[in-house]
Amino acid sequence: MRGRIVLYNEVYQGYWPTVNYRRTGASRAAALGAVAVLVRSVTPLAMQIPHTGEMRYDDAQPRIPAAAVSPEDAMMMAALTASGVTVKVHLRMSAHLEPDADSGDVVGELPGKEHPEEVVVIGGHIDSWDVGQGAQDDGASIIACLQAVALMKKLGLEPRRTIRVAFWVNEENGGRGGEAYRAWIGDRIRNQVAAIEMDGGAESPVGFGAAVDKASADLLRQIGRLLERVGAGDISGGGGGADIEPLMRDGVPGLAERTVGTHYFDWHHTEADTFDKVNPDDFRKNMAALAVMSYVLADMPGRLTASGATGQ
Amino acid sequence: MRGRIVLYNEVYQGYWPTVNYRRTGASRAAALGAVAVLVRSVTPLAMQIPHTGEMRYDDAQPRIPAAAVSPEDAMMMAALTASGVTVKVHLRMSAHLEPDADSGDVVGELPGKEHPEEVVVIGGHIDSWDVGQGAQDDGASIIACLQAVALMKKLGLEPRRTIRVAFWVNEENGGRGGEAYRAWIGDRIRNQVAAIEMDGGAESPVGFGAAVDKASADLLRQIGRLLERVGAGDISGGGGGADIEPLMRDGVPGLAERTVGTHYFDWHHTEADTFDKVNPDDFRKNMAALAVMSYVLADMPGRLTASGATGQ
Repeated sequence: MRGRIVLYNEVYQGYWPTVNYRRTGASRAAALGAVAVLVRSVTPLAMQIPHTGEMRYDDAQPRIPAAAVSPEDAMMMAALTASGVTVKVHLRMSAHLEPDADSGDVVGELPGKEHPEEVVVIGGHIDSWDVGQGAQDDGASIIACLQAVALMKKLGLEPRRTIRVAFWVNEENGGRGGEAYRAWIGDRIRNQVAAIEMDGGAESPVGFGAAVDKASADLLRQIGRLLERVGAGDISGGGGGADIEPLMRDGVPGLAERTVGTHYFDWHHTEADTFDKVNPDDFRKNMAALAVMSYVLADMPGRLTASGATGQ
Repeated sequence: MRGRIVLYNEVYQGYWPTVNYRRTGASRAAALGAVAVLVRSVTPLAMQIPHTGEMRYDDAQPRIPAAAVSPEDAMMMAALTASGVTVKVHLRMSAHLEPDADSGDVVGELPGKEHPEEVVVIGGHIDSWDVGQGAQDDGASIIACLQAVALMKKLGLEPRRTIRVAFWVNEENGGRGGEAYRAWIGDRIRNQVAAIEMDGGAESPVGFGAAVDKASADLLRQIGRLLERVGAGDISGGGGGADIEPLMRDGVPGLAERTVGTHYFDWHHTEADTFDKVNPDDFRKNMAALAVMSYVLADMPGRLTASGATGQ
C-alpha cells in the first residue's frame, strides 16, 4: 500500500503531555487519509532506540500501522522534509494482535490480627513491554512490595489489618488486572482501607502522592516523618495509578509511591529496561518506604479518607 | 567453528583505562585458544547499543572475530556464567577489512601577513565510525575549526602568522592522515608554531590541555583569561591528540581543546552520535575558544615551547 505516512515529531514535554501522540495519533491521521504513522519516541533521552507503548484505535477509522521511531530518526525525517526532500519510508512490521488469553493477578496476604477483613493493598503490575525485561516498569516495584511484607513477616510484625500484595496483570495494554481485582473484591471494597501502587520505577524514593482529604494528608505527613531517613517523607497530591484506579473510582484512598524519576523515561518501554538499571540501595529504600507506609496504615486506629469522598 | 568465546565484561573506569580490552583483547584471548571475543562497550551509559571502535591484531596470533556488545548483554552473560549456566553464543558477523584506498586530508589557510611561512594548525578528523554520523566525533569539531577561521575572515582579522585548518583522515583506524600531514610539511615543521586538535566533542568547552613548558603555560593562561567569558579559560597539562601526535613527537607545541565531556562517551562510536547531539550554544563557544586561541598564537610576537623540547 502506498500513501502518505504521518510523522509525529513532538519534542518530549514530560510523559503525560507527550504520550497522546502515540496513543491517539494513528486514528487521527487515518481520519485525514494517512496510510501509517510514525511516532517520535516519548522520552527525554535520544539514544537511537525506539520506546514502544500502548496506542488505541478509534473504531470509526481504518486501523493503520503505527510505529515508534527513535528521536534521532524522527528529527532526521522532519529536517529532511523541512528542507524540501520527500522522505520515502518503507514499513515492514510484524506487530499484530493475538487473540485474548487468560492470565491472572497474583495475590498474597499478611493477615491482620484484629481486623483481617480490612485490607491495605500494595502492588504493581507483573506484565511489561516485550522489548526489555521490565525491570523498572514494573518488576522492581512488585518485588519491593513483596519484600516489604516479607520484611514484616521476618520481624514478626502483626498489623491490626491485613496487608495484601497484588501483582496485577495487563496494566500495559488494557488494565484488566486492576479491573478484575476490583470485580473480585465486590462489596468488600468498603473494607479496602487504602491502595498503594508503585509504578514509577525503583530509583531513589521521595515519598507518596496521595488522593486523600486534608485531614488524611496531615496524617500521612506524620507517617512521612518516619521515612525522612530514606528521603521518602514527602507527601503530595495526585496519588493513584492505572491498577488502583478502579478502586479509587469507588472511593478507596489511593497512594502512589514516588521516586526522583531521573532516568525512568530514558529506559521506559525499551530494550534498556533491564535488571542492571535497578540500584540495590535505591531498591531497598523503596521497600522501606512501602513497608513503613503500608504497616502504619494497616496498624493505626483510624482510616484515611479519599479526596472527594462523600463519607462512604 | 566451535570453541571458547572470551567475554571482557570490564566496567567503565574512564575511556583510556578501559579501552585496552577492546584494543588488544582479541589477540590476548587468541593466545589462550579462544575462537572469538566479545567486548563490553566502553561507555558509562548502558542503553542497549554497542559502541564500536578500533582494535589491533597481534601478528603472532590467529585473527579471531571480535565484537562489541552492549553493557547490558555483557552483564547478562557474565551473570549467567557466574550462576553456572553455560552461555552459548552464535556469532554471525559481516565486518571485514577492505583493501586500502586513497583518501586525502583537507587543508585551508588564512595566510599570515608578516610570517606566512609560520603556521598555527587547527583541526580534527574528517572520518568517523560508520554506525552513526560522527557528529560529536569529530564532525562538530572540524566545523568549529573551519568556522573559527571563517569568523576571522569575516571580521577582517589578519594575524601575523598563517592559520591553517586541517581535516585529517583515517584517525579512527590508523592515523595515516596525521602521519601524511607530518610527511607533507617535511622540514617546514620548524615553522609549525603550534598545533591545536579538537577531538573530544563539542559539549561546553572548558579550555585547553597543552604540552608546553612552564613559561608557555603561563602565557597560555593569559590567553585563557580572554576565554573566561565562555567558560573556556582553563589551561591544563596533557595536550595533544592522535592527529597532531606526529607533529608533537617532533617538537611542535600541541594543544587539545577540552570540553566538560559530560555525555561524550555516551554517544561515542554509536548510532546515537548524530547531529541533534550538538548544542548550538556549546558549538559556538567551542568555535570562540578555537578562534581566540589560534588567533593569539598566530599573532603574538613570541612562540610557545613544547614541554621537553630541547630548543629546536
